Amino acid sequence: MTKKKPLILITNDDGITAPGIRKLISVMQKIGDIVVVAPDKPQSGMGHAVTVTSPLMLHPFSSENRHPEYSCTGTSVDCVKMGVKIVLGRKPDLIVSGINHGSNASVNILYSGTMAAALEAAIEDIPAIGFSLNNYSIGASFDGFEKYIEKICLMVLEKGLPPATCLNVNIPDLNGSEIRGIRIVRQGRGFWNEKYDARTDPFKRNYYWLTGFFENVDTDEDTDIWALNNNYIAVVPVHIDMTSYPALRQIEQWGLDNFN
Amino acid sequence: MTKKKPLILITNDDGITAPGIRKLISVMQKIGDIVVVAPDKPQSGMGHAVTVTSPLMLHPFSSENRHPEYSCTGTSVDCVKMGVKIVLGRKPDLIVSGINHGSNASVNILYSGTMAAALEAAIEDIPAIGFSLNNYSIGASFDGFEKYIEKICLMVLEKGLPPATCLNVNIPDLNGSEIRGIRIVRQGRGFWNEKYDARTDPFKRNYYWLTGFFENVDTDEDTDIWALNNNYIAVVPVHIDMTSYPALRQIEQWGLDNFN
Repeated sequence: MTKKKPLILITNDDGITAPGIRKLISVMQKIGDIVVVAPDKPQSGMGHAVTVTSPLMLHPFSSENRHPEYSCTGTSVDCVKMGVKIVLGRKPDLIVSGINHGSNASVNILYSGTMAAALEAAIEDIPAIGFSLNNYSIGASFDGFEKYIEKICLMVLEKGLPPATCLNVNIPDLNGSEIRGIRIVRQGRGFWNEKYDARTDPFKRNYYWLTGFFENVDTDEDTDIWALNNNYIAVVPVHIDMTSYPALRQIEQWGLDNFN
Repeated sequence: MTKKKPLILITNDDGITAPGIRKLISVMQKIGDIVVVAPDKPQSGMGHAVTVTSPLMLHPFSSENRHPEYSCTGTSVDCVKMGVKIVLGRKPDLIVSGINHGSNASVNILYSGTMAAALEAAIEDIPAIGFSLNNYSIGASFDGFEKYIEKICLMVLEKGLPPATCLNVNIPDLNGSEIRGIRIVRQGRGFWNEKYDARTDPFKRNYYWLTGFFENVDTDEDTDIWALNNNYIAVVPVHIDMTSYPALRQIEQWGLDNFN
């Protein structure tokens, strides 16, 4: 008896032509039947944006592969919704997003279109994984860590994920032999220390470019930032419940409802 | 000795002219010195989008008020960043966002530009509150619940919030006397049951409008959805750490790192 191949939906936020998604497609072809629905242009830094005030289009995307691919005029979240509802017409067995050009460790999960796609899948109770490489360059090398991606996907397909949960996988920018393995870790604390570069346009109006660098304020060894900095692949299980339960208990004591 | 008035930055995602932010401004004027930095156009459903690939502008916004107001060409997250770094040049004592035209209870926090502004403040360790009214109409009434907004803001200014935490406040669409009070609750589970309305454009190309309704899958009384449905104001303390710690312990047992 042959086992049925899993159905895998692939998306990203860098756009359907990005080298990162091309690598992810090549790895996923070994694992299951794949369908690609990805943005027709870069949608990085779009967070969990969803298109509600304008219509969306899907276009068949020519590629050398034999599986179906569609480019979508919307965001990565739109790609997940349209992929499931229009292209597949059913929930796939797995949704993978990426490989993102740039780290989505620490608080970057909140800004990330790559992880928004995975979180959208978690909302819809579909197992999902977002993959990101710690190198922002379009020319980054995506070679050498294929076996880790394959292993993580196979394990998720075998074991499943808890409800409303997906994985945020960040990969150090190293060749395969330098990678020391996989660490299951928590989201490290950090923030972007930003500076706006102020300029003046030809009409004497001020405009601003966002610049800055990421500041890590969490040196613990159980964090994604530590894992990446120490040549490990960082796997953070994330869930969509953002409630702070300790804060809830604390604020209950405030007497917010007391107007006497 | 007179106590120094707190400095409060106000933003939203419906745009600087929306009735919701006008009401929030009128309530905040009683509490502190206020500065408004809000999008120059609606930015709803933009999630935690941040503008990195194009420059941004700030324009002084004429209003009848005596406090400073600026419209920003970016998202609600851009407004927080530019408000703090360019307009104020320092962290305010409080950032408030809203009042959103529409509920941001349950998983809507992930899609919400209103809450993205509050979460951005939490990343930057500034106390913040997002306010939303459970009515999507531009003509919604924002009267009758001012005292609750004032009380919540005064308590946050007095008590502070735990690190990396902000409040998601959702208000039922009722006149003030019908509101039964405030509940401190958790984020309820739910999802959007979506349908794409498929149409054909004049050039015979298909296009799709996103439609759908919210499905509540969580009837517990300790949730924001229950509170709203039962005429209470729902206050959910949310934090930016999305790690699922139970899933972390579980996945550690998978042997993901075992390639033998």
